[in-house]
Amino acid sequence: MKIRLFLLQFVLFLVCFSSLSFAKIPPRFPSSSFVQPENLYFSLASKGNKLYETKYFTQILDHFNYNPDSYQTFQQRYLFNDKNWGGAKTNAPIFVYTGNEGDIEWFTQNTGFMFEIAPHFKALLVFIEHRFYGKSIPYGGDKEIAYSNTSTLGYLSSTQALADYATLIIDLKKNLTATDSPVVVFGGSYGGMLAAWFRLKYPHVTIGALASSAPILNFQNITSPYSFNNIITQDFRGESENCYKVIKGSWKKIEDMAKTTGGLKKLRKSFRICKNYISPDSLVNWLSTAFTYTAMTDYPTPSNFLNPLPAYPVKEMCKAIDDPKTGNDTFEKLYGAANIYYNYTGKATCLNLNDNSDPHGLGGWTWQACTEMVMPTNGNNKESIFPPSEWDYNERVRFCKLILDVKPRPDWITTEFGGHDIERVLKRFGSNIIFFNGLRDPWSGGGVLKDISKSIVAIIAKEGAHHVDLRWSSKEDPEWLREVRAREINIISKWISQYYQTKTDFSH
Amino acid sequence: MKIRLFLLQFVLFLVCFSSLSFAKIPPRFPSSSFVQPENLYFSLASKGNKLYETKYFTQILDHFNYNPDSYQTFQQRYLFNDKNWGGAKTNAPIFVYTGNEGDIEWFTQNTGFMFEIAPHFKALLVFIEHRFYGKSIPYGGDKEIAYSNTSTLGYLSSTQALADYATLIIDLKKNLTATDSPVVVFGGSYGGMLAAWFRLKYPHVTIGALASSAPILNFQNITSPYSFNNIITQDFRGESENCYKVIKGSWKKIEDMAKTTGGLKKLRKSFRICKNYISPDSLVNWLSTAFTYTAMTDYPTPSNFLNPLPAYPVKEMCKAIDDPKTGNDTFEKLYGAANIYYNYTGKATCLNLNDNSDPHGLGGWTWQACTEMVMPTNGNNKESIFPPSEWDYNERVRFCKLILDVKPRPDWITTEFGGHDIERVLKRFGSNIIFFNGLRDPWSGGGVLKDISKSIVAIIAKEGAHHVDLRWSSKEDPEWLREVRAREINIISKWISQYYQTKTDFSH
Repeated sequence: MKIRLFLLQFVLFLVCFSSLSFAKIPPRFPSSSFVQPENLYFSLASKGNKLYETKYFTQILDHFNYNPDSYQTFQQRYLFNDKNWGGAKTNAPIFVYTGNEGDIEWFTQNTGFMFEIAPHFKALLVFIEHRFYGKSIPYGGDKEIAYSNTSTLGYLSSTQALADYATLIIDLKKNLTATDSPVVVFGGSYGGMLAAWFRLKYPHVTIGALASSAPILNFQNITSPYSFNNIITQDFRGESENCYKVIKGSWKKIEDMAKTTGGLKKLRKSFRICKNYISPDSLVNWLSTAFTYTAMTDYPTPSNFLNPLPAYPVKEMCKAIDDPKTGNDTFEKLYGAANIYYNYTGKATCLNLNDNSDPHGLGGWTWQACTEMVMPTNGNNKESIFPPSEWDYNERVRFCKLILDVKPRPDWITTEFGGHDIERVLKRFGSNIIFFNGLRDPWSGGGVLKDISKSIVAIIAKEGAHHVDLRWSSKEDPEWLREVRAREINIISKWISQYYQTKTDFSH
Repeated sequence: MKIRLFLLQFVLFLVCFSSLSFAKIPPRFPSSSFVQPENLYFSLASKGNKLYETKYFTQILDHFNYNPDSYQTFQQRYLFNDKNWGGAKTNAPIFVYTGNEGDIEWFTQNTGFMFEIAPHFKALLVFIEHRFYGKSIPYGGDKEIAYSNTSTLGYLSSTQALADYATLIIDLKKNLTATDSPVVVFGGSYGGMLAAWFRLKYPHVTIGALASSAPILNFQNITSPYSFNNIITQDFRGESENCYKVIKGSWKKIEDMAKTTGGLKKLRKSFRICKNYISPDSLVNWLSTAFTYTAMTDYPTPSNFLNPLPAYPVKEMCKAIDDPKTGNDTFEKLYGAANIYYNYTGKATCLNLNDNSDPHGLGGWTWQACTEMVMPTNGNNKESIFPPSEWDYNERVRFCKLILDVKPRPDWITTEFGGHDIERVLKRFGSNIIFFNGLRDPWSGGGVLKDISKSIVAIIAKEGAHHVDLRWSSKEDPEWLREVRAREINIISKWISQYYQTKTDFSH
């Protein structure tokens, strides 16, 4: 049952970088786009104004059972900014970010939207860290223990996380004597799924949710397992047919080259790989990772997710591939594309194929992907930019058994949160959810793309990528992005006005 | 940590029979009114037509965590009647009873309403037993193990029960290839709370809920702890001021008499108590139990809950008390009233003060009342028919520590399911719930008594008692009861029509 931490690091590597070969775990969510401190709007922090205070809440380990063990508690971190808050007396709103699978500071620093709209709404900002990530580690904060075996890791689940958020928010409001302040929840990616689910499950705690790039439908028998890679394909093919063809044709060329005498050495040289060792599989993973994450973070302005990227990086990659200077040299073309993702600053003298660092503490996602977050994304049809392959649930089962000694429950998420037939189910149930999706984001295929009711609405940006709306704004933002954010602000304003109105109605 | 079964039996006794003295656990729900086999409408069963088939489902012990232990399963019992079902091809509806804190056969046999409306709706009937009750015992069905300590009992919780129902229903529909059949859930008392919560938490599994006498608001800081006993007071006082005064005055008279030489013996004789032992406390508990449960089951036709009762038993009790033949003999008057509850058949030659049998397997309720179901009901104000007393949460804490070594979480239910400000919260969230309450039922004070929205509605019967609407109908039923049921049928019909209509809309 013991799982060594290094094994998790290994798994992390597999999860991040192996969408093509043996371990078909879905790509990790990129979760957020990191913005450099020199960003105009990030100057808040650099001017000595702290972006947030750090606080801790004593949280219950197991909300749903009453075993003696489950009465244990842990310290859950949350970040707090009340600079713009109108205060409890005016019932000024509270905006809560429902943290995802990593360090909450990272998400907070990259959710500029909430900081930028706080003054307008006189809102208190709270960013809650997801259990088992960052500094919110059960078992006395000892990650080695918390991640040591399936008994301890077992408490890492989405339902527990949602109950954490409910418990913390209710307690916080009580302590602030702000029980009548409306709460709006925000989240991107997995955090967006949590925000949407939170509104559905805890309507008594939040009046509405902005769920950005939340693929709540990316589960078995709802969304096609080809959807994810089809969108990546379309992103590149949309830039140029040649770009698509070069990438699509490259996999066989790499395989063929690897088989020749001195082929691996030649590949290593072509791609400026640092270490001596190279395998065609790892090269293929390394390249496909670059294409996948570049598609997800195909933002209209320069960004920095795992790596710094220019504006519209897919376009830049295709430019490199289509560059006439590289002639017919496929590897040189692909190197040019990969260099944009892995070395846009140009500082690296060689590229590291096996980077299994985890600066944002995302390692727990493997556990989640092996228990409940079984999101089929690895199918590749004939037209895919990647080699054809089928989503194979049993492969996931074998992988999870091997690595974590755990059995996935592929139907649990839809049992608990629904998903099937969602338009019918929510047409007359629930309210106040915005589902934002950028259609260039491969996860958008598993998102809610149509309005469900008058107040459960879809906002679509044809040119948008993964939760682009939540990023800090920039003078260079295109008009469509400004419009998306304006619509979101407008809708949230309506929720809040309606809340105050209803409050008044019932107190008369 | 070991809890001996006999201790639970003892607790059961305390819970049932001690609303006045030291252990202020709320009265158990009476849950259902038992109907004798000779009932006209019960003849279904007696004619050799089985009322239901018994089936079992392999259920997951812990839905919310992924610890190795929690991957255990247990056999969950459900009862099944498809005699009237229109079948999967026509997407005929499925009516599910969300079982409460006892043997599901008992609830099923007493939920005649579902059997009686099944032919009209061509509905499949399913009655699911609540985990840890009846034959749905985890740990291999061994109640001795399941109830042996807090580690095993820990899995007895309402959230787990709801997830059981979702899992079972989804699986059952799949097996019947009836995934498109609409599901309506029904429940009375705690089962009604579960039905309402199930609709709120699992709208993708059920299209609507009939929650009968479901005191979902009977929690701290929502409903007054005096409410419960105030209603009992009103029930008796409404019959006659004298009846109220005699009962109210009796407690001191019992106390005084007990203090005199030979007083206990005199009391024993007055009340025809079988055993030699008598204490004023146990006599007081015995009497107050009779008044409490008679108020709850103050049905318009003869019934049989724990004991057989005449129609309108409160009226009968007051008749006995007001009977001029008993003159000024308070004890004789009270004996006459108690005799209606404890010996209506007249078969008993003496009355048993300490009956701690548990024929319907309700013993797990103490655990639930000591963990999450902290429902304040024990307050008695000056006007109460019982001696004045305050609801004291700390008393519950001490009791639960002593008996079960467990600490209540008094805020959990409202954190998970809401309750505060319910009208505002559900005004624009959720749909399709009927809250039925009979205002003579002491639990009605914790029920939803006003329409919340167009489709979350309250049906009130001024003369109704605890989930009287779910009982088998009878030729003697008063007009108001017929009307209540007709309204319920009408509303459920609309839910189903709307479901079919929406289904069609989305498939076009």
